[in-house]
Amino acid sequence: MMYRMPTHFGPAYGPRQGEGGKKFANLNSPKNTSISVSFLTNKEQLEELIPEGFELGSTPVVTVGAGYGTEIEWLAGRGYNTLGVSFPVVFNGKKDHAVGNLLTVLWENLTDPILTGREELGFSKIYCELPEPRVYNGQTHCIASWMGFKFLDMKLWNMKKQSLEETAKPVKKKRNDGTLHYKYMPRTGEWGTRDIAYTVLTPSGNSNAVVKEVWRGEGSVEFHKATWEDLPTQFNIVNAIQSLEIKEYRGASIVKTVGGKDLGDQRILQ
Amino acid sequence: MMYRMPTHFGPAYGPRQGEGGKKFANLNSPKNTSISVSFLTNKEQLEELIPEGFELGSTPVVTVGAGYGTEIEWLAGRGYNTLGVSFPVVFNGKKDHAVGNLLTVLWENLTDPILTGREELGFSKIYCELPEPRVYNGQTHCIASWMGFKFLDMKLWNMKKQSLEETAKPVKKKRNDGTLHYKYMPRTGEWGTRDIAYTVLTPSGNSNAVVKEVWRGEGSVEFHKATWEDLPTQFNIVNAIQSLEIKEYRGASIVKTVGGKDLGDQRILQ
Amino acid sequence: MMYRMPTHFGPAYGPRQGEGGKKFANLNSPKNTSISVSFLTNKEQLEELIPEGFELGSTPVVTVGAGYGTEIEWLAGRGYNTLGVSFPVVFNGKKDHAVGNLLTVLWENLTDPILTGREELGFSKIYCELPEPRVYNGQTHCIASWMGFKFLDMKLWNMKKQSLEETAKPVKKKRNDGTLHYKYMPRTGEWGTRDIAYTVLTPSGNSNAVVKEVWRGEGSVEFHKATWEDLPTQFNIVNAIQSLEIKEYRGASIVKTVGGKDLGDQRILQ
Amino acid sequence: MMYRMPTHFGPAYGPRQGEGGKKFANLNSPKNTSISVSFLTNKEQLEELIPEGFELGSTPVVTVGAGYGTEIEWLAGRGYNTLGVSFPVVFNGKKDHAVGNLLTVLWENLTDPILTGREELGFSKIYCELPEPRVYNGQTHCIASWMGFKFLDMKLWNMKKQSLEETAKPVKKKRNDGTLHYKYMPRTGEWGTRDIAYTVLTPSGNSNAVVKEVWRGEGSVEFHKATWEDLPTQFNIVNAIQSLEIKEYRGASIVKTVGGKDLGDQRILQ
Repeated sequence: MMYRMPTHFGPAYGPRQGEGGKKFANLNSPKNTSISVSFLTNKEQLEELIPEGFELGSTPVVTVGAGYGTEIEWLAGRGYNTLGVSFPVVFNGKKDHAVGNLLTVLWENLTDPILTGREELGFSKIYCELPEPRVYNGQTHCIASWMGFKFLDMKLWNMKKQSLEETAKPVKKKRNDGTLHYKYMPRTGEWGTRDIAYTVLTPSGNSNAVVKEVWRGEGSVEFHKATWEDLPTQFNIVNAIQSLEIKEYRGASIVKTVGGKDLGDQRILQ
Repeated sequence: MMYRMPTHFGPAYGPRQGEGGKKFANLNSPKNTSISVSFLTNKEQLEELIPEGFELGSTPVVTVGAGYGTEIEWLAGRGYNTLGVSFPVVFNGKKDHAVGNLLTVLWENLTDPILTGREELGFSKIYCELPEPRVYNGQTHCIASWMGFKFLDMKLWNMKKQSLEETAKPVKKKRNDGTLHYKYMPRTGEWGTRDIAYTVLTPSGNSNAVVKEVWRGEGSVEFHKATWEDLPTQFNIVNAIQSLEIKEYRGASIVKTVGGKDLGDQRILQ
Repeated sequence: MMYRMPTHFGPAYGPRQGEGGKKFANLNSPKNTSISVSFLTNKEQLEELIPEGFELGSTPVVTVGAGYGTEIEWLAGRGYNTLGVSFPVVFNGKKDHAVGNLLTVLWENLTDPILTGREELGFSKIYCELPEPRVYNGQTHCIASWMGFKFLDMKLWNMKKQSLEETAKPVKKKRNDGTLHYKYMPRTGEWGTRDIAYTVLTPSGNSNAVVKEVWRGEGSVEFHKATWEDLPTQFNIVNAIQSLEIKEYRGASIVKTVGGKDLGDQRILQ
Repeated sequence: MMYRMPTHFGPAYGPRQGEGGKKFANLNSPKNTSISVSFLTNKEQLEELIPEGFELGSTPVVTVGAGYGTEIEWLAGRGYNTLGVSFPVVFNGKKDHAVGNLLTVLWENLTDPILTGREELGFSKIYCELPEPRVYNGQTHCIASWMGFKFLDMKLWNMKKQSLEETAKPVKKKRNDGTLHYKYMPRTGEWGTRDIAYTVLTPSGNSNAVVKEVWRGEGSVEFHKATWEDLPTQFNIVNAIQSLEIKEYRGASIVKTVGGKDLGDQRILQ
């Protein structure tokens, strides 16, 4: 049985553990819409963002991806939304070698998945408001804000629905072991030191997710520079992303899926 | 410098670290209103809630305390609210001995302090909605809810303002070393095991908090039994507290303070 | 050009008037999911709820219908949700005769459409929180609350998707002229008197709405009795609906549509 | 007894009518904090904003005032916030003559008072989000936003507490009959025509409000220009205010009061 603070009230409930330790099937749910825009940036700027043990992947392309999920089993059918920023990296550990995307930050609009995501999985999840995307006049518009400060406008247009054959084709032959994260937990009282720090991997595959629709087209991403007053806990994160040079957009997509996985295959790399 | 996930964007900002590593004074802020109601319950029921290394304190009196804070420096002057449940315990470690209150759970209505509170301090913080108290017809009414399910009604009445002399008098001669917590962080992938688990103490004192007003009177606490569907991540917590027998109420208070501390004196007990 | 308070800043913007007086097409949007449950109740109880000039329709069947709309043109692609309670009536005016449903109340979770709906259209719109429906384990669960008090649980199950032919069939041969409302505006200062009061009709048809999916099955409706403290502006409304005897459920449906109309055909009946 | 839509469920509940037609005393509540900043602007720009029958008052000084209210009786002790923009006018009717401030718009963050305010009183109330003011480092910072778009930053600093004698002194000898409004209700179906339009007055005085604290100092007001997409129902209002030239600031104040009135003395001017 898994535990999370508070531990006094028995085992914790979450994505990987329901009533009586039950596993969730993730077969016909959740329903998810992933909206993302990619852009080419500077190698040098991304190099400043990678943790120890990592090096940059093949091309410095950053993907900003928003996810809008509903019918989530472990929340008894409720939903929540996410916003992540990632780019290709290679991890060279003492034992493990992995090629994938580093998820530098994942905003979510609900605290419960943030807690289990940080502590059990090692995702760098933090909170922001993520209202449903606005769709008007052929444009899809995603925003993100924190306590009154809107820090992102992401827009997509000219989206063309892909045929299911096209969608099924394995577009990328590039090796992709999954999504990489750097888990870190500070030590109480001995400020500046840590209890733990290790690299974790969300392996590709093992998922019941079925792609229902894929749309491809054009998009733009605009992060808004923040002061400490605007975002006292996150301005450094938003400003670092905002400062990345956008050399060239590399396409936009909207992908609708049904099903998923409980990420129980998340594992430490060494 | 302190770090928190995501670590890639430089040192973390929070209560104990502002721009350029700045400390916050906590002198003329925050402003806080603490509203609490206590009741006598069964020793046996509380014994089921204490972690290893703890034993029950002198009397099995549970305090439910809601806090409404504004002008918080590390949030650039914003506020947030809290709801905690605690009772007296004694900690007998290999090295340390402490007498105080175990904070079994602390709900907060903002994710940012929840993250720093769990990870840096070891508080068992989780999220819920905590609207401002309602004050009508001589009654103060606090509620707490999560995604549509109200799980607490706490009411206070017959509140009498205490003179400042009365307030200044040290009412409790009982030893109180501070507030005790049990910090626990799960290990990724090796489900059911942990990276760390230790007892932590928020020492009494060291605070710039000045009491401005104290009101004493009567109160009642009603937790509402929840199904898994109502509170899929917290029903076990709410139901455990709801099941505590209320043998007798032990008074209610409203305390207004200005100033505080950054909890930088939080420390591990062994 | 249409006006609404404040009138000082030029013509009002809303569903029937965009920039430069533009009309909205309502062709490929909004997208709407209507979730409703019906039940048979007492004639006598409904008779207490009908305004002057109305009489009860054929059968005393109450329909509770929740709507979840997105991609709304006049809100630049944002969405909002609704919850209405209606039953069949006949209007016998001096000049007009109409058969339809009386929409006794329509909750919405956004103020802007409430204002235009009340003032321009004469809908009895009021505010409540209407989160997205929860879908878990074959059950769809809609809730409604106001400032911490959940006043409705509506559940649907055993939902079967109807074939498009079945859906296209005109099930009801009964005359239905549309939805009826009673518009009322109080007169300032002369308390208890009114500036205007008249019956209005939302005519059936004239809409670009296209049905995409229809599901039929079983459902239940549970309104929760409220005190004045719980719902100081609405407890009378919720309690009147809650008190209606549920003699027999008369089915449940989920209908997904695309397109609509701007209700510019709303008109006064005499 | 007063009525509001929906009228079918009996008399309406609101500020001027509680259970059984009860009046609220407004004696020891509500508690209110009024935060306002004034500036001198162009006569010509204000002249475009005044309705028929009005002329500009002595000096074209605009006051932007935010109110933060708690312990409101008719909401069973809950609170809500407001944001108004006003300037001096003279009303010359056929029968009545009044000198006061025209409240051009009043944003509120709760729908219920918006409805009774518009319909019973004739206030030009509309909705926006109005979080509690931020107080940090000697600065008070008020913001207002609508669905993700922040349209106002108002800041106050160098605030000095006034002695109670100073506060009690009647600073203004200028005639002030109260606050003026222009009530307007459109007619259904005959688009562009109206059911009613008249001037209303909130008379000065008749209030149980007692001033507890007055602070005076400096301030600034910054409205942010909006596109139709940002504020599809309000961009014209925000942009008209944003376009007012700020020739000179005319002071800032924070006033704390206890008590009020139910505005039952609101009346039509002719």
